Amino acid sequence: MKLYNYFRSSASFRVRIALALKGLDYDYVPVHLAKGEHRQAAYADLAADGLVPLLELDDGTRLSQSMAIIEFLDERYPEPALLPPDALGRARVRALSQSIACEIHPINNLRVLKYLSGTLKLDEDTKNAWYRHWVRTGLEAFERQLSQQPPSRYCVGDTPSMADCLLVPQIFNGQRFNTPLDGLPRTMGVFEACMALPAFQKAQPSACPDFEA
Amino acid sequence: MKLYNYFRSSASFRVRIALALKGLDYDYVPVHLAKGEHRQAAYADLAADGLVPLLELDDGTRLSQSMAIIEFLDERYPEPALLPPDALGRARVRALSQSIACEIHPINNLRVLKYLSGTLKLDEDTKNAWYRHWVRTGLEAFERQLSQQPPSRYCVGDTPSMADCLLVPQIFNGQRFNTPLDGLPRTMGVFEACMALPAFQKAQPSACPDFEA
Repeated sequence: MKLYNYFRSSASFRVRIALALKGLDYDYVPVHLAKGEHRQAAYADLAADGLVPLLELDDGTRLSQSMAIIEFLDERYPEPALLPPDALGRARVRALSQSIACEIHPINNLRVLKYLSGTLKLDEDTKNAWYRHWVRTGLEAFERQLSQQPPSRYCVGDTPSMADCLLVPQIFNGQRFNTPLDGLPRTMGVFEACMALPAFQKAQPSACPDFEA
Repeated sequence: MKLYNYFRSSASFRVRIALALKGLDYDYVPVHLAKGEHRQAAYADLAADGLVPLLELDDGTRLSQSMAIIEFLDERYPEPALLPPDALGRARVRALSQSIACEIHPINNLRVLKYLSGTLKLDEDTKNAWYRHWVRTGLEAFERQLSQQPPSRYCVGDTPSMADCLLVPQIFNGQRFNTPLDGLPRTMGVFEACMALPAFQKAQPSACPDFEA
């Protein structure tokens, strides 16, 4: 397998975690988003949506969208499972994952930030306040959801699931923009538990071959 | 089952389509987003994330996030299937769904539009240009993805899937903000095919009990 991705892309980071949790080997193909490599013809020929991550299987089949890729990996390589065996459990994991992937991350995507500073000519402080606002309000909603569940080491239960693959990169993003992360005990407890695992360590931006400080 | 939702919420519309395709009865509980009913205590007690749609099962279990709800319904009520039987087909349907739910819709959510006009004091024209920009560029990426697949009546294959439940409400939103929808033959062909089905007609905003012109 080949993973087209970028060290700082949090959608890429999600898939790297899933691959590491399952112990799957893959070729790391860097696509430098900040230099616009995803918009060049060579990449556009591969990825119809022009986004990372893109997973290319050994037979050449290409898959896009991080959650779709993670669910595919979970179906193709079932151990260790990243979704629970029961329908309600799966619905909870998917809902928590989508709370990150549909409610927080897209609003702070690189192309949205570029529109804010480029097209709308907003200054750096206004852009950073925007970023922190959506991370903070999104994580507060995430915390309320975790608080309604019984105590657990990870987002759902005592083994990592797809929801943890989504949460951790979002916390990294929040930290990078100095978002206040106080008053989120369940969420940050899960984050700490995840970061104690080698799979999360190995997948983090600073451990990537294309990392730039 | 009870569906807490709002006629104009496109995430609600997605779930209404899925329920209609499966012929499932439910109580329609309106939550007036424009009046802020989702932020009132009564609703916050039900929905930890304060969002619609929220599906309440007969035993009181509550599920959030439209794609998670649709996958749950598909697992609990398998006919007619809204996801293909094979892992690659499911990955395609999920990726197309997420192209809408993670790349287009969140950036144009009501709370984001409120931030643009309230906090950032942007005028109506600038806000509307923002809206159309993300719908248009998102649908162009969607069209490129459909074009890489063999011809099909719906997004994937010749029966409606979760991807169609996501696409149709996004087209409604685009039309409401006068987004140009020319040059998207595959996408708009799928939209027309869907709207020829009673389930999509029945689920649309103008057919909802809380509809306001």
